[in-house]
Amino acid sequence: MSQPNQQAVIELLGVLAYGELEAFDRIAQDALMAPDLAGREAMSALAVKEYGHFQKIVEYLRDSGADPAAAMQPFVGAVDSFHQSTAPSDYPEAMVKIYVGDGFAADFYREVAEYLDPTTRRLIDEVCGEYGQSEFLVPTVRSLIAADETLASRLSLWGRRLVGEALSQAQRVAAEHDAILELMVGRVDLAEVGRTLARLTDKHSERMGQLGLNA
Amino acid sequence: MSQPNQQAVIELLGVLAYGELEAFDRIAQDALMAPDLAGREAMSALAVKEYGHFQKIVEYLRDSGADPAAAMQPFVGAVDSFHQSTAPSDYPEAMVKIYVGDGFAADFYREVAEYLDPTTRRLIDEVCGEYGQSEFLVPTVRSLIAADETLASRLSLWGRRLVGEALSQAQRVAAEHDAILELMVGRVDLAEVGRTLARLTDKHSERMGQLGLNA
Repeated sequence: MSQPNQQAVIELLGVLAYGELEAFDRIAQDALMAPDLAGREAMSALAVKEYGHFQKIVEYLRDSGADPAAAMQPFVGAVDSFHQSTAPSDYPEAMVKIYVGDGFAADFYREVAEYLDPTTRRLIDEVCGEYGQSEFLVPTVRSLIAADETLASRLSLWGRRLVGEALSQAQRVAAEHDAILELMVGRVDLAEVGRTLARLTDKHSERMGQLGLNA
Repeated sequence: MSQPNQQAVIELLGVLAYGELEAFDRIAQDALMAPDLAGREAMSALAVKEYGHFQKIVEYLRDSGADPAAAMQPFVGAVDSFHQSTAPSDYPEAMVKIYVGDGFAADFYREVAEYLDPTTRRLIDEVCGEYGQSEFLVPTVRSLIAADETLASRLSLWGRRLVGEALSQAQRVAAEHDAILELMVGRVDLAEVGRTLARLTDKHSERMGQLGLNA
């Protein structure tokens, strides 16, 4: 692994690790909004899963000789800003945020992982491949919107806002941290960037559709 | 296992399970008050451990043919009241609450477990025996109070309030749920109740002393 590439890997795993730790704490809080113990248990289990991802990335960073706290620190501001500007106001919003937000982030990390060494790529695929297991979210959201038409349009709007905020924080991270960008510069032409964005958007629309919402 | 005894076991495991689920969510929230990522990681790891306890008890209830949600439901009010009346206002209060509160609860459950069948007793000993592993709390609290004298007296007061609130909720639970009390009635004389309370108080004072606080 060349030096600049290693720096990019550490930065990428740093933001991913902090994102998982933050997701753990936020989802554990969201769990308190569940209307019953079954929902609360399911949400808490999701939070614990995010903590497991966090641990895997931290171990990988340590094994690579990197300091996990130092790798995460530069991204605390952007990740916290995202969550502060997208604090769910109720349980349905919390569920959509987890399904749509985690899904979008996972797709993004897997796209970038294509440019990394196979070992790091495997780790990211493993950690980001699990968001689909939160499948209790889909039937729960669908049954809620089936019983409440205005909820569906509110949640559709919410899904669009989530992606807007995520993209604006991603831009901030990219602007402040060169290594990740440099990884792709010279290897990616503008058309490929366009295709990547199209893939991310398509998958986002697909997830919104699975929830019964308009992207 | 006789019928009334079985009812007592389900009630006891119900309140213990809900206590662990609530502890998970509360400690995950407390983690956000940590001043650095290391503290946040340590607190989050504690929360995840509580969730592991919750899962073990839920599995045990299911294997015994009981409905975990039904077993927990009657205790939601008392456990939530305890946490609402003892919401920590900062990180030091959160750490003392976990160390002192969890320790006191663990001792209490282990005292009651003495009256149960060996299998249930083993489960309770296992689940309640782990609170001591939160040993990062002790040096962290000690170093904070070494640097701040008024903090020590505020936290000593806080520790006394925690135990007062815990006892008042325990009394409420005992008054509303006969089975647990009946388990001990006729088998325990007043002197034994006194000795049990003395043991609980001694261990509480010991924990406060470990933190460098006055009980």
